Amino acid sequence: MVVTSRDVARLAGVSQPTVSRALRDDARVSEATKLRVREAAQLLGYVPSEAGRALSSGRTRRIGLLLTDLDNQFYSHIIAPVHRELETLGYQLMLHTESADNDTIVERLLANGLDGVILATTTVESVAPLRLKDRGLPFVYFNRTGSFVEADATVVDPAPGYRDAVRRAVELGHTRVGAVLGPSNTSTAQSREAALRDALVAEGVTLHESDVRRVPYGAAEGEAAASEILAGADRPTLLFCGNDVVAYGALNAAHRAGLRVPEDLSVLGFDDLPEAAWPIIDLATIGYDIAGMARTAADLIVRRIEDPDAALEKTRFESAFVPRRTLAAPHAG
Amino acid sequence: MVVTSRDVARLAGVSQPTVSRALRDDARVSEATKLRVREAAQLLGYVPSEAGRALSSGRTRRIGLLLTDLDNQFYSHIIAPVHRELETLGYQLMLHTESADNDTIVERLLANGLDGVILATTTVESVAPLRLKDRGLPFVYFNRTGSFVEADATVVDPAPGYRDAVRRAVELGHTRVGAVLGPSNTSTAQSREAALRDALVAEGVTLHESDVRRVPYGAAEGEAAASEILAGADRPTLLFCGNDVVAYGALNAAHRAGLRVPEDLSVLGFDDLPEAAWPIIDLATIGYDIAGMARTAADLIVRRIEDPDAALEKTRFESAFVPRRTLAAPHAG
Repeated sequence: MVVTSRDVARLAGVSQPTVSRALRDDARVSEATKLRVREAAQLLGYVPSEAGRALSSGRTRRIGLLLTDLDNQFYSHIIAPVHRELETLGYQLMLHTESADNDTIVERLLANGLDGVILATTTVESVAPLRLKDRGLPFVYFNRTGSFVEADATVVDPAPGYRDAVRRAVELGHTRVGAVLGPSNTSTAQSREAALRDALVAEGVTLHESDVRRVPYGAAEGEAAASEILAGADRPTLLFCGNDVVAYGALNAAHRAGLRVPEDLSVLGFDDLPEAAWPIIDLATIGYDIAGMARTAADLIVRRIEDPDAALEKTRFESAFVPRRTLAAPHAG
Repeated sequence: MVVTSRDVARLAGVSQPTVSRALRDDARVSEATKLRVREAAQLLGYVPSEAGRALSSGRTRRIGLLLTDLDNQFYSHIIAPVHRELETLGYQLMLHTESADNDTIVERLLANGLDGVILATTTVESVAPLRLKDRGLPFVYFNRTGSFVEADATVVDPAPGYRDAVRRAVELGHTRVGAVLGPSNTSTAQSREAALRDALVAEGVTLHESDVRRVPYGAAEGEAAASEILAGADRPTLLFCGNDVVAYGALNAAHRAGLRVPEDLSVLGFDDLPEAAWPIIDLATIGYDIAGMARTAADLIVRRIEDPDAALEKTRFESAFVPRRTLAAPHAG
């Protein structure tokens, strides 16, 4: 037997709309009636239907997290804190991945009756922000800003981290450096590359274009690109990597090529994922508060939903160089 | 302006219910009318409301994936294939984590109007299966079976993998072995421990209880437990680990203790996660088709929703020993 609000109404001796209002904690219902309705609902094991509630309030309390690619290890570290923060705020998380066809994904987000979206894809040419704005669905940028459409955003400033990392690399004696950067159509790769180049210029280090690759943020892709660079005649003694996952790939490439890390090759990542600190990996990297950024993105979208006229907010997270085993002085000769 | 089905009806020159039926591809509507309605809907940019559709069909096409802990690396490897398979079948994935209070989670699953649930928590004392059955919400077991409540299930048989791994370990000369097993209130830890003990008995190897620990499936927990075992006077030359993540922890513990892997200590995992194959980790382990199991669980829940009377199905995945660098002959002396 399915228990309906009609059954609850009959047992509590109130009307059906009063049941809905009482369970929504509506101020128009007296505390005594709310108590009676709740007791009746509990006795009967009544669960209000989400679909019915959504139609009456216009809210589903569901928030989408739009990702490029669920397999990426980076995302597994943001899903948990976003999920927990939203749960604390009384919202549910729905994961969505962006396919090549951006128009379709926005229609799907709308069809799922989401209250808002956290955009964690960083592809600069994505039309998702524009379409979301057109359709009036609130969203926030995660780990990026938008060039065309303004919205609340959380971003990382990579400059301080790269400044300190490059200074340290130069002190250690690195002069020939290479880079396995992220895909050039992402805002993260663009901002990190700009910060890296500024820091290299400041220290008078030249980045040879033959030692630069741009790859998707994956371990296999990082490994393939690093292998190419390391196969060159006059190979670099240090590889800057677009993120930690790419750096794990570079470490694998060095291992396969029989190069010792850090004696023959130093490697620097970006993100400071938990695995980077493991003794068996011990990756020098550039860190920031990933979990804090995830929580902030959740807070921002809920604030935007509940107060559509709030002033735009852009929360900036500082980066910092994290020295570890994989960045050391190059082996003489 | 919010476009409603009334606007579409007016433009297409049909009634409002015909709009809903046409967009649901209902057989009672002619192909010509469907085409006219779709064109009108597209012209106006009409998106049918999920909530309205759910009320009329009783289906939300949303499936929950109930996990213990989103931070666990194991889960990040199953979320992507489950998500993709459900998407192919026209369903959306919602993630849920099980808190200490199981009663609450089942009420939340129901309140979210899910069509079904994939239970990927493996705690044997969980009352979730019982409550889901009581409430008539279809579910399947992922990587476990239920002792009290029968349901479709996907399971791994750890016996073949352990049989081959233990045989190989004995051939290599290991006689003193230890184990960092999973938590004893999970069905995965129970079945793996049983298979491991059977294999050890078959090969005549004794597992000393002083060299056995049971920990949650995490790297930090694995590291702490392995450190304790390795601090003992007569330490084992091989550690069997409850899963790969625990094994990564054991490798970290060995590294911190200054022990060489595999010369001073061999380590064996379980799951064969992608990272286990990386040259810098190169973890000997026991593998099975994780992605296939994830896809099968998605197929089973959709089948159960669409055909509630289908015969119960339990899909069994074979395990196999995966030899790698971390399992080798113990160093003499």
